[in-house]
Amino acid sequence: MTQEQRSFLEAKLLKDYQLELDDEGVSGERLAYRLGKIAEIGLTSEGGSYRIGFSKGERQAKELIKSWMRAAGLKVTEDGAGNVFGRLAGKQAHLPAILSGSHVDSVPNGGHFDGVLGVLTALEVVEAWKESNFQPKKPFEVVIFTDEEGSRFNGGLTGSEGMMGNIKLEERKQLKDQNGLSFQEVLEADGLNIDGYVQSPRPLNELEMFVEVHIEQGKQLEKAGLPCGIVTGIAGPCWLEIKFSGVAGHAGNTPMNDRQDALVAASQFVYEVSKLPKQVSETAVATVGKMFVHPNGANVIPGEVQLYVDIRDIFEETRNQLVDSVISCLNEIAAQSQVKVKVKELLRVRPVPIASEMQEKLSHSLQAHGIKEMRLPSGAGHDAMIVGEKLPVAMLFVRSKDGISHNPKEWTSLSDCVQAVHVLKHFVEQLQQK
Amino acid sequence: MTQEQRSFLEAKLLKDYQLELDDEGVSGERLAYRLGKIAEIGLTSEGGSYRIGFSKGERQAKELIKSWMRAAGLKVTEDGAGNVFGRLAGKQAHLPAILSGSHVDSVPNGGHFDGVLGVLTALEVVEAWKESNFQPKKPFEVVIFTDEEGSRFNGGLTGSEGMMGNIKLEERKQLKDQNGLSFQEVLEADGLNIDGYVQSPRPLNELEMFVEVHIEQGKQLEKAGLPCGIVTGIAGPCWLEIKFSGVAGHAGNTPMNDRQDALVAASQFVYEVSKLPKQVSETAVATVGKMFVHPNGANVIPGEVQLYVDIRDIFEETRNQLVDSVISCLNEIAAQSQVKVKVKELLRVRPVPIASEMQEKLSHSLQAHGIKEMRLPSGAGHDAMIVGEKLPVAMLFVRSKDGISHNPKEWTSLSDCVQAVHVLKHFVEQLQQK
Repeated sequence: MTQEQRSFLEAKLLKDYQLELDDEGVSGERLAYRLGKIAEIGLTSEGGSYRIGFSKGERQAKELIKSWMRAAGLKVTEDGAGNVFGRLAGKQAHLPAILSGSHVDSVPNGGHFDGVLGVLTALEVVEAWKESNFQPKKPFEVVIFTDEEGSRFNGGLTGSEGMMGNIKLEERKQLKDQNGLSFQEVLEADGLNIDGYVQSPRPLNELEMFVEVHIEQGKQLEKAGLPCGIVTGIAGPCWLEIKFSGVAGHAGNTPMNDRQDALVAASQFVYEVSKLPKQVSETAVATVGKMFVHPNGANVIPGEVQLYVDIRDIFEETRNQLVDSVISCLNEIAAQSQVKVKVKELLRVRPVPIASEMQEKLSHSLQAHGIKEMRLPSGAGHDAMIVGEKLPVAMLFVRSKDGISHNPKEWTSLSDCVQAVHVLKHFVEQLQQK
Repeated sequence: MTQEQRSFLEAKLLKDYQLELDDEGVSGERLAYRLGKIAEIGLTSEGGSYRIGFSKGERQAKELIKSWMRAAGLKVTEDGAGNVFGRLAGKQAHLPAILSGSHVDSVPNGGHFDGVLGVLTALEVVEAWKESNFQPKKPFEVVIFTDEEGSRFNGGLTGSEGMMGNIKLEERKQLKDQNGLSFQEVLEADGLNIDGYVQSPRPLNELEMFVEVHIEQGKQLEKAGLPCGIVTGIAGPCWLEIKFSGVAGHAGNTPMNDRQDALVAASQFVYEVSKLPKQVSETAVATVGKMFVHPNGANVIPGEVQLYVDIRDIFEETRNQLVDSVISCLNEIAAQSQVKVKVKELLRVRPVPIASEMQEKLSHSLQAHGIKEMRLPSGAGHDAMIVGEKLPVAMLFVRSKDGISHNPKEWTSLSDCVQAVHVLKHFVEQLQQK
């Protein structure tokens, strides 16, 4: 293959690849070629990825990966939610399978690593075993979950929820995408249907555990100078919508002691909230990212402020504790300031802590490849969050350049991707010993 | 005159008028009739007033009032800025005149009292004197200043600036209104011209002082249950535009101790600023009314916040002191938080304190009419602010319902208006004694 024939992403990935990482049958070039091929499906004018859930792009990516799965000797099946499984028979075919993968859908104008990397690293483990004529004791399945991002219906995790039995049929039947298509119509356009979707839940005794490789989408590994790290848990977000209602008035004609300034109260709240997470745990976070001020005139005392608080932790207890202390803080400020407040909980997702046994196994695998161990929480949701509600899960984060994700600039070096393949391979091999 | 012929405003004003206030030649009915007639010029579909500076509406209102001035025996002149003067000769015709009035232009969809009341109360004093055959020792002039609100060119105080010699010719020549008309074209459409405008400054030795009656546009008199009150000074605003630049990031994947959250820094600032005015004076105020958060996503740490601080006091020293302490507070927060800040001063207008001698005279006039004295600052700018830079001024505020102004709902009862006429009349009569 000449340089000219390479896709733009493949060429860019290979540029600074450390060739010595090609070892034990793992091929950086193959992984780069595949990442490049998938990137060409739904490529946007800004160099990003447009493959929203159930779109032609997501379907085309699934079909291309299915062809690679078959070529690698995997038995390919697809369930009613569109989840693709490529199964490598184990020497002991009756044992529950080890599952690894992620998703291939993207947000509009997203990046080329989010999701895809998890699917292709799992497939690369299979390729490496094939080259070294290794057959695991336990069946191994590479999975592509459908519609993780939720850009179609503002939901997400549709595939993993289907497999795990969170069918939510009535709720989904009411969904409409931005073109007004219903969930059923969207399924049908993708060659699926509601009857099949309802049958997507998989008997859980067929699976031992799920391990997901994913880009970090943060800067912690980059700051520590590490290619990958162990995820300690997946934070469940709680979203609060808060309205502060004061009294608008002329900025010149209302004395300071006669004001009910909604923005002063909201500001005190935002500032206090930033100090609360460390009181409950090291991993807890709380963010006010979105705020509207009314009427928003330079010489008018704000009569109303609306803001949103995003509260997360990997432990349900501390996350809920933080939600409670945010609300107490709000009520205290309301009591002091004569500004009225109203809270509405928009969302409360259960966090999924990852079992220390799984973290230890990943730790051994990192050690085996001379990678210094770093443990970090996942602030964003992933398919492993849904699977982890009922099955053991493990997650390996791979370094993101500048922490940028959901953006054409999303980047992870090929060397980091291949190191993740090695760690994943070692981890799955460890699991054979049990 | 029958009920049917009355204008909507006149009828509404007369409804709960305390007839016993008709005394010493002052007529509530005449004042209500005139307020009603002016309200019909530029009446909006929402019941508000649309008579922006130099518009046909402002001109029509001026011409109607000129006819009333002439009927009352005043000698009417108009200067090159369109300022109208109705002069009552004094017994000692050579003495400098006492000037009273305000403006008749409005903001788009404004109220029916802002400005107009000051002109018509001054004219009502003349009517009262006429009915009681009183001629003052000193000449008395009723003035209508042009374009006080500045809705035409985003400026304002054009007429009073012209009379006082703040011609700013080069600056004004560059102005364009929203239809793209220049200052010159706008003047010409109103029957004026640049050559005349340049000659609008009046020899200051022709004037002893200026007294302006104006609605409060705040709630202090209403809260105190008083019809009118003594203005202690006109606050000069200073406007700061401030940008906080942090680093945007994922709300889930960025630990609390690794954030440069622009909104947390901005919030701390807004909260601290609200505590600063009382440290410099009782009348100082500081307001953050307008704020923009970027990128304003519920799960994104704000990377940038832009906000505006409006700082006022009636004393220049304390106003400037407050500006300094707001900036110190900002720099302290920037130093603590790793968020960068940038300040731009958009405006700094000199405050006009009102001489205690003038306040004392108004105090006597309130006493004479059995009105409890209240002194309060004016947070908003008025023609008296411009005149007060070089001549003695006095200002009397009249109660505003709910503090609402620049709005069709602007309201002041006829009884309060008439009480203001009595106070103004007594005040001007006091000035004859000197």
